[in-house]
Amino acid sequence: MALQGCTLEADLVSLRETIHTQLENYVSAASNPGLGDCPETLRESVAYSLLAGGKRLRPVLVLLACEACGGDVDAALPAACAIEMVHTYSLIHDDLPAMDNDDYRRGRLTNHKVFGEGLAILAGDALLTLAFEIIAKEIQPGSVAAACCADLASAAGWCGMVAGQVADIEAENREGTLSGEHVLQEVSDDNLIRSAALAQLESIHRRKTGRLLSSAVTLGARIAQVSQESLHRLEQFGNRIGLAFQIADDLLDVTGDAKKLGKGVRKDASLGKMTYPKLLGINESRQRAEALIAEGCQFLTPFGDRAGKLIALAQFVTQRDH
Amino acid sequence: MALQGCTLEADLVSLRETIHTQLENYVSAASNPGLGDCPETLRESVAYSLLAGGKRLRPVLVLLACEACGGDVDAALPAACAIEMVHTYSLIHDDLPAMDNDDYRRGRLTNHKVFGEGLAILAGDALLTLAFEIIAKEIQPGSVAAACCADLASAAGWCGMVAGQVADIEAENREGTLSGEHVLQEVSDDNLIRSAALAQLESIHRRKTGRLLSSAVTLGARIAQVSQESLHRLEQFGNRIGLAFQIADDLLDVTGDAKKLGKGVRKDASLGKMTYPKLLGINESRQRAEALIAEGCQFLTPFGDRAGKLIALAQFVTQRDH
Repeated sequence: MALQGCTLEADLVSLRETIHTQLENYVSAASNPGLGDCPETLRESVAYSLLAGGKRLRPVLVLLACEACGGDVDAALPAACAIEMVHTYSLIHDDLPAMDNDDYRRGRLTNHKVFGEGLAILAGDALLTLAFEIIAKEIQPGSVAAACCADLASAAGWCGMVAGQVADIEAENREGTLSGEHVLQEVSDDNLIRSAALAQLESIHRRKTGRLLSSAVTLGARIAQVSQESLHRLEQFGNRIGLAFQIADDLLDVTGDAKKLGKGVRKDASLGKMTYPKLLGINESRQRAEALIAEGCQFLTPFGDRAGKLIALAQFVTQRDH
Repeated sequence: MALQGCTLEADLVSLRETIHTQLENYVSAASNPGLGDCPETLRESVAYSLLAGGKRLRPVLVLLACEACGGDVDAALPAACAIEMVHTYSLIHDDLPAMDNDDYRRGRLTNHKVFGEGLAILAGDALLTLAFEIIAKEIQPGSVAAACCADLASAAGWCGMVAGQVADIEAENREGTLSGEHVLQEVSDDNLIRSAALAQLESIHRRKTGRLLSSAVTLGARIAQVSQESLHRLEQFGNRIGLAFQIADDLLDVTGDAKKLGKGVRKDASLGKMTYPKLLGINESRQRAEALIAEGCQFLTPFGDRAGKLIALAQFVTQRDH
C-alpha cells in the first residue's frame, strides 16, 4: 500500500496544478464574466492571496479523501477550492495588525501591506462567503451540499477555527499561564502543570488548525457519499493528522529553513510562544506526531489500496521540510 | 388588503420578539451547551452586537415573505436569524477604524470600542460563518438549505454586499467624481453628470444594502418552496424595496432625530458623502422611494391577502422616523 516518495511528489504536483487552475478560474476576470459587480481592487486583493501558492494541503486532502472513499475526484474539486478559500481568508485576517501583525506570508508581503487594512478585511470576508457560495451551488445533490456547508462552517466557526484564533491570542496575552519563559520554568518543575499546558496547547491547535484539516477529509468523504461508519473513520483519521500537522509546523519553526518555508522561522521562540518542541522537546514532539499519524492511518485499513495516497500524504506531513 | 398602521406595529413587535428570543437561544451559553469550545469573550462579543436591537428588518422580511408564499413561518425562523447575523457581521466590520471608524451603533459603543479590534474582526467572522451553519443544518430539505446558502452568499459576497462596501469606500476616497461639493457643483450644471452620479449611487446601494434585503425576501420564498415564477416576483419586489429602504435611510440622516435613530445624524453631509437627498432633493427622493415601493408591490398582486403584511411593511419603510 505504501507509495514511493517520488510517486507521491508527482501526484501532489499534479493535484496542486489542478487546484491552482480551478482557483484561477474562480477569481480571474477573464474566465468569470459574472464578476462584473465585483470592484477590480477587491478581485485583485482576493486573487493576490488565493493564488500566492502554499502547500494546498487542505484541498489535496479533500480530493484524496474522496478518492479513498471511491468518489469522483472531479466532483470534489469545488469543495477543495472552497476550503482553500476559507484557509486563505483566515491567513489574511490573522496577519492583520490587530491580530498577529505579520508583514510577510508565503514569501510575499501580506495582503494588508499591499492593499491596506480595510480591503484586506473585506477580501477575507469575500473569500469566506465565496467558499459557501461555491459549495452550495456546485456540489451535488443539494443535500450533500448542505451537509458540506454545515461541516465546513462548524469547523471554521466560533467553536472551531475562529475559537482557536481567539484562544491563541488570549493565551499569548495571558501572563504566567501558558506562554512565556516563566511558565516553562514551572513546567520543567512539575509534571502536572506540564500536562495541563499540553492539554491547553492541544485545545488551541485542535480548534485553530485541526478542525479545518479534519473537515477537509470529511468533505471529501461526504461528496463520495460514504456510510456513517466510513465518515466516522475519516473523521478520526482527520483529527489525528490535524494535530500531527500542527506539531510538524511547530518543529519546522525550530528546525526549518526560512528560504524553503517562504516565511520567517524561530518566530515562536522570539515571541515566547508555547509550542510542542518547547513543551516536549524536539524528539518527543516528532515521536508524538508520528504516533498520531500511525494511529490515524489505522482507521483507514478498511479502505484498502484506494487510501494509499491519503496515507502517503499523512506520512509525508511529518517528514516535510517546508 | 392594506393593514392599519397599528396592526402592523403590533405584528412587528411580536415578530421582533420571536426573532430576538431565537437569536438569544443561538448565542446564550445557558441555552447552548454545544458552545463549550467557544471562548467566553468571543461569545460575549458576538452576543453584544447581535442582541443590541435594531429594526430586524431583514429577518422580518424573511418571515413575511414566507407567509406571503403560504409557507410555514416557523420553518423560516433559522434563516431569518441567519440573515440578521450576516447583517450584524457587516455592521461590526464596517464600523472598524480601517473602514468607517464609528464609535456608536444602535445607541451603544461599537463592538471594537468594547472588545478591541482583533476580537471585533473575529466576532464578525464568527457571525458570518454561523449564518451558513444554521441554514445548512436547520433548513429542510437539504436542497432548499443549499439554495438558501447560495442565495445568501451571493447577496453578501464580493459581487453583493462586500462589493458595495468596497465601492462605497472607493467613492469616498475618489476626488471630484462622485462625492464632495465639487461634484455637486458640476451636477447642478449638467443633467448628464447628474444621471451618471445617480447611476453610480444606485450601483453602490444596490450592492451594499439592496442585494441582502432582496435575498431576505427570496429566502422566505425558497423556504415556502414556491414556483420559479413566484420567486422571480418576490425578487423584483425585493430589489425595489431594497433601494427604497436606502433612500429612506439617506432621508432619515437629513430629517431624522438622533435620539430615535440611536445613531448620529447629518453624518453623510459632514463627510461630504453623496446621498439621494443631496442629488435629488428631499421631495424628489421621497417620491422616488414611494414609486419604487408601489412598483414593487405590483409584483405581489397574485399573492392576494397573504401578502398583506409584507406590503404594509414595505409601505412602512418609507414612512418610518427611526
